[in-house]
Amino acid sequence: MTKRKQLKTDISWSTEDKITIKGLDLCRDIMGKVSLGDMAFLELTDRLPNERESQVFNALAVVLVEHGMTPSAIVTRLTLAGAPEAMQAAVAAGLSGLGSMFVGSMETAARILQEAIPNPEAPGDIATLAQKIVDDHIKKKRSLPGIGHHIHKPVDPRAPRLFEIATENGFSGPYVALMNAVADEAQKQLGKSLPVNATGAIAAVASELRIPWNVVRGIGVMARAIGLVAHVLEELRDPMAREIKAMVEEQATAHLR
Amino acid sequence: MTKRKQLKTDISWSTEDKITIKGLDLCRDIMGKVSLGDMAFLELTDRLPNERESQVFNALAVVLVEHGMTPSAIVTRLTLAGAPEAMQAAVAAGLSGLGSMFVGSMETAARILQEAIPNPEAPGDIATLAQKIVDDHIKKKRSLPGIGHHIHKPVDPRAPRLFEIATENGFSGPYVALMNAVADEAQKQLGKSLPVNATGAIAAVASELRIPWNVVRGIGVMARAIGLVAHVLEELRDPMAREIKAMVEEQATAHLR
Amino acid sequence: MTKRKQLKTDISWSTEDKITIKGLDLCRDIMGKVSLGDMAFLELTDRLPNERESQVFNALAVVLVEHGMTPSAIVTRLTLAGAPEAMQAAVAAGLSGLGSMFVGSMETAARILQEAIPNPEAPGDIATLAQKIVDDHIKKKRSLPGIGHHIHKPVDPRAPRLFEIATENGFSGPYVALMNAVADEAQKQLGKSLPVNATGAIAAVASELRIPWNVVRGIGVMARAIGLVAHVLEELRDPMAREIKAMVEEQATAHLR
Amino acid sequence: MTKRKQLKTDISWSTEDKITIKGLDLCRDIMGKVSLGDMAFLELTDRLPNERESQVFNALAVVLVEHGMTPSAIVTRLTLAGAPEAMQAAVAAGLSGLGSMFVGSMETAARILQEAIPNPEAPGDIATLAQKIVDDHIKKKRSLPGIGHHIHKPVDPRAPRLFEIATENGFSGPYVALMNAVADEAQKQLGKSLPVNATGAIAAVASELRIPWNVVRGIGVMARAIGLVAHVLEELRDPMAREIKAMVEEQATAHLR
Repeated sequence: MTKRKQLKTDISWSTEDKITIKGLDLCRDIMGKVSLGDMAFLELTDRLPNERESQVFNALAVVLVEHGMTPSAIVTRLTLAGAPEAMQAAVAAGLSGLGSMFVGSMETAARILQEAIPNPEAPGDIATLAQKIVDDHIKKKRSLPGIGHHIHKPVDPRAPRLFEIATENGFSGPYVALMNAVADEAQKQLGKSLPVNATGAIAAVASELRIPWNVVRGIGVMARAIGLVAHVLEELRDPMAREIKAMVEEQATAHLR
Repeated sequence: MTKRKQLKTDISWSTEDKITIKGLDLCRDIMGKVSLGDMAFLELTDRLPNERESQVFNALAVVLVEHGMTPSAIVTRLTLAGAPEAMQAAVAAGLSGLGSMFVGSMETAARILQEAIPNPEAPGDIATLAQKIVDDHIKKKRSLPGIGHHIHKPVDPRAPRLFEIATENGFSGPYVALMNAVADEAQKQLGKSLPVNATGAIAAVASELRIPWNVVRGIGVMARAIGLVAHVLEELRDPMAREIKAMVEEQATAHLR
Repeated sequence: MTKRKQLKTDISWSTEDKITIKGLDLCRDIMGKVSLGDMAFLELTDRLPNERESQVFNALAVVLVEHGMTPSAIVTRLTLAGAPEAMQAAVAAGLSGLGSMFVGSMETAARILQEAIPNPEAPGDIATLAQKIVDDHIKKKRSLPGIGHHIHKPVDPRAPRLFEIATENGFSGPYVALMNAVADEAQKQLGKSLPVNATGAIAAVASELRIPWNVVRGIGVMARAIGLVAHVLEELRDPMAREIKAMVEEQATAHLR
Repeated sequence: MTKRKQLKTDISWSTEDKITIKGLDLCRDIMGKVSLGDMAFLELTDRLPNERESQVFNALAVVLVEHGMTPSAIVTRLTLAGAPEAMQAAVAAGLSGLGSMFVGSMETAARILQEAIPNPEAPGDIATLAQKIVDDHIKKKRSLPGIGHHIHKPVDPRAPRLFEIATENGFSGPYVALMNAVADEAQKQLGKSLPVNATGAIAAVASELRIPWNVVRGIGVMARAIGLVAHVLEELRDPMAREIKAMVEEQATAHLR
């Protein structure tokens, strides 16, 4: 038998009369005192938020819950139609697509901001950082995450609203400034209006909350799980999966008939 | 081309300057005003909770977020180890096991309660209903969901705490009474202490909130998604997946060596 | 520490110089000698098929590989669009819908046949069994799996072809007879043509191969995984996910605009 | 309504009396004539294999079916324990971990080979290519996929066997030569024995079969789906999921008690 590393978790454990989560007693310290959003903050950061953090974190999280008929929502509905006895698998299938193309872009934006400003107490010159980020992306022919939007024009209304809530609660610091500076710089260099979108605003505000960039996708995953349950319920009441399938099949094979 | 049913969703839609969710304007009515837990209530029931409903619903939801090293948490960690670039798929894999055996038992308990009391304004005689439920399960040799617990003895502390919060907020009605009566009747007929557990308390309190039984599993799925993200984060910091795999493989093939 | 049941697998184990699968040496006994289909038979039944079994099993399995733009294929494509770096998760999402409504009906059909004829050496009177099955389903208002088809009319061409291959190889016994008798009886009682479809033919022929009914869904799952990889490849070359999403969203929210 | 790209698939379509897959008639051209492995080749490459290709492809695919108690197999078993009614979701959860760390390394190895030799008719000097690959990986401190093995020492027996089958069938060309040359060069530069392992052999032989590197992971996904169904069956007969969960939980929370 090989010598092994000890398995070890510090998240939660139970005894006969107590459940402890992140050091708190579930029944005494959490139930009736901590909301679901604040519980999510606790799970992500190992401590409860203060009131201002709670205000900002919950605002940020609710933005991610529901986006209507996204690919994920369609996936959940089609999966439910085949296995109505397993709604958890329908939600799971929907979450599986939250990769680099959609929710992942939020992670990328947060990474760019946090790598540019490793220490928010000493951020350096914001305009210079923004210029470097934009130059770098244009040189590598990469698209800049967090700016522009194909539907919400000229401005994605979620971004200014989230920045407003962050400002009201004292969370408009260097990351928000840098995100806005990137948008300005991109507009200057590319010659078209590319205001910060919801992705960029969330990335910036999450960074102000000191949430590490590799945790940011997790906020999207947990929030979207809530939204996908709503799609399960609507699909059970008023199904559209069969119609979607019939429509797609008919159109995609039309050239063969 | 066949005539088709019109596709139709009422959950959410977007225009250039507005996102509407369940009839509310995301930026004006929700962000900064509605917490993540209340947003979940909105998604499940099509309306925002009042303050007392919010108190009870959030208490109920936080109970479901985190249960330590569950099969789901282990699944999420093992999946992440193979595909660290796809944390959403690791959470999805973890959710896939929330079927009839674990989270599903909450659904079954809620169904029993809601089928016994279709109209909570006129619940009928609680003791008679409880006797009928217990008789029926004993006759069909089915286990009764919502009572007894293999770890938390003599009492699962989450159940009395959740009932306490429900009572404080005016949500201790016929479903809570019936759940308790079922536990009493089961104890009488089976001759052992089988107090209401967290599953039973959640089923009863969700029923008091008028949440349909087939929605109850959804609360578990959305809450557990939050908890599984926490396991992703701990696994990234301090991995145990390889050890689990090595340990299981070694033990399971020991008889072949 | 509690006393525990010993973990134990007999499927496969490895030593420094050998991999053993179901008792066979992978390098010596399997590679170069056993085809993928026969390997699947080995995994399902713990032994290699003889030539006739191989012929029938492979015919049955290939029927299940590809069905064009099924809900599963659409799910795989939409998931891939969001997470192109995780094609395994896209296939997994597609498989998640193979539940009671599609592949599950094959399982149900096989179960009906195998419960009606527990011992195929002494099947009893086929016509009587068929009548009992049809009566029972009509009485309980359940639809009969394995007969009729909404596209393939009057006859699903896969069914007679699979029966033909089974007959050529000596696998047309009491289960095939019963499946056909059920179709005849249903036609008599319901007054419309309901010939055995692919689902029914596979259920019957799998039963002739002595594959337990609760394994039958597994054949569908493994075969469809192959087909979904083909959809991944086509979606990478010539994507349609964004169009599907745009079309569904536009139609489903048209009444709100 | 926006103008849209036409949806289009060429994989499969159905009419009332015919199912066409990749241009072949399922009933006439495939059933009874094409094995499951050759069907997989057809799905991946748009044509049926000749006999030698079939021999090599099936050998390569069967290697990937079963690896005993892998993380994926454990995931499938734990998921099944929670949702025994949804075996497809248990297989799906198991597949979700086939990412960059396990099956993905095969893809990476194939990519390295195919990028080094874009045209196998004019491969260039193998030794020079191998040196460049090894230099490059050592310089970037990346591990070289396809060589060495932590269990199978000194040699992973699957690799020479697969190369033998490839040679017998005329598929030992420049990619096999390059893979072996990489192993030799790595041994020279790193001073330890690092023979080609199964991953490397599969990558090389798949390249000989002209299977594009981004398709190679797909072979692993489809083959492993077969193996995971076998783990579902064993878990149903002789479960170990609860024991695994109890063991992991006990050990991982021991320091908290």
